[in-house]
Amino acid sequence: MGELYLVGMGPGNLGGLTLRGREVLAMAEVVIGYSTYIRLLEGMGLLAGKEVVRKGMTEELDRAEEALGRALGHSRVALVSGGDPGVYGMAAPVLELLEERGFRRADEGVGLPGRFLLGEKEVRLEVVPGVTAANAVASLLGSPLAHDTCLLSLSDLLTPWPLIERRLHAAGMGDFVVVLYNPQSKRRTWQLRRSAEILLGYRPPNTPAALVKSAYRERQEVHLTTLEGLLEAEVGMLTTVVVGNAQSRLYEGLFITPRGYALKYDLETGEALPGEVPGRALRRGNG
Amino acid sequence: MGELYLVGMGPGNLGGLTLRGREVLAMAEVVIGYSTYIRLLEGMGLLAGKEVVRKGMTEELDRAEEALGRALGHSRVALVSGGDPGVYGMAAPVLELLEERGFRRADEGVGLPGRFLLGEKEVRLEVVPGVTAANAVASLLGSPLAHDTCLLSLSDLLTPWPLIERRLHAAGMGDFVVVLYNPQSKRRTWQLRRSAEILLGYRPPNTPAALVKSAYRERQEVHLTTLEGLLEAEVGMLTTVVVGNAQSRLYEGLFITPRGYALKYDLETGEALPGEVPGRALRRGNG
Repeated sequence: MGELYLVGMGPGNLGGLTLRGREVLAMAEVVIGYSTYIRLLEGMGLLAGKEVVRKGMTEELDRAEEALGRALGHSRVALVSGGDPGVYGMAAPVLELLEERGFRRADEGVGLPGRFLLGEKEVRLEVVPGVTAANAVASLLGSPLAHDTCLLSLSDLLTPWPLIERRLHAAGMGDFVVVLYNPQSKRRTWQLRRSAEILLGYRPPNTPAALVKSAYRERQEVHLTTLEGLLEAEVGMLTTVVVGNAQSRLYEGLFITPRGYALKYDLETGEALPGEVPGRALRRGNG
Repeated sequence: MGELYLVGMGPGNLGGLTLRGREVLAMAEVVIGYSTYIRLLEGMGLLAGKEVVRKGMTEELDRAEEALGRALGHSRVALVSGGDPGVYGMAAPVLELLEERGFRRADEGVGLPGRFLLGEKEVRLEVVPGVTAANAVASLLGSPLAHDTCLLSLSDLLTPWPLIERRLHAAGMGDFVVVLYNPQSKRRTWQLRRSAEILLGYRPPNTPAALVKSAYRERQEVHLTTLEGLLEAEVGMLTTVVVGNAQSRLYEGLFITPRGYALKYDLETGEALPGEVPGRALRRGNG
């Protein structure tokens, strides 16, 4: 039986890899991934004696096919993704491929890990979760995601832009903290500005926002701004954007979304309720 | 100078801990946490020779105060959280405490890691991100979070219920995948049912849903159901609930949310719909 592991590398450096991820990489015979991650793993000596397959960033389907093909050939294969394979990562392409090829379940279980059959060939599939960009970026900012949050990709390569706009409106209406993945690329230059315009319909211009580039990598850049500031922001492929909710605030260079929400506030007037102190979520006696 | 590390333990077992998390725990002189995590770390021999402070689950503010107090006394302190400290975890309580006490920034930077001063006492603060429940649970189900997702806590201890309902409506309107943290407790028994009722206003009754209890722990239970099935579900404190978007489907016991959004393509002909730019799809031939 072949084995296929989808391994989340976590953020930039190897410090974000989980113990389970490292264990799986140690066992793997074949390691497949985008070249940046392969280089990182090589640098740590984790790939010695293994077959290594480097792929370009856009060759997602190729990576999935190569990995599944190798596993069907009875190898123990690790397909590595940045962050978490489940969040805009390799999990969906691999499962969609399984479905397209007509694999059948070979065990009695549900979910993963699981064993799947194609004809007489069997493969065991496991997803090893990782720290996704939202959480990595948050750890560099303070506590921006301490309340209800949306993760939203601005890439319209596989999603119609009108649906992305609908989601931005929904995130605004729901006062969710918003984490924007893939905010911009060479081809997509106006999407972040348009997103900020939409959210400005729901939140004040001075709502805290942040741009984090290359989190946990050598060229990491952490930049605090405001929702209004996003209208002029220059970002690239490696940036993740965070927009706070109505309660988010900056304090001494920290992006704080308080844990306790506004039980203490009159949601209409924004004033503190009788007996409550504005701006302080952490009071004994009310949680 | 004291040091305070907020360390995410990731899901249930130690396999979810990151290499950076383990490194920080190895350096720590004092480890503070909810007793379940302390027990796990002890079981792995990671706490030998350290001072250990166990706290109950509801003593969140106490944990924050104890940790900050110890760090101000020049210790190297690790405060451990399940999952990621930034997601309904210890990051916000600690930062809010910093603010309440009037700490000032002692370095030129923004965000974290950072050094903070209270009078003449200095503390260095770092958040070590971890795999949050959403990602852990997703890895056990398939690829439910492969498209835009909301994380939403149903606990109304610190959030007014009307705001939670508003967010459920927004998540429904935006066709986000929804991950519900804290869906139920002994005291809160109707919130999950009510949430399903709200989402049923936006999605078909047979929309895939899942209940995952104690992910990556001994008593792990993975249960696939539907949005309608959530109306009758019995869940507890240790369960995370996932509700798919309009594109989510089940295949051979796997919860698949496709990466490519089918609205963009005519699924019969594989052609891009009017006004859409074809991208490389994940499924050859039908986008």
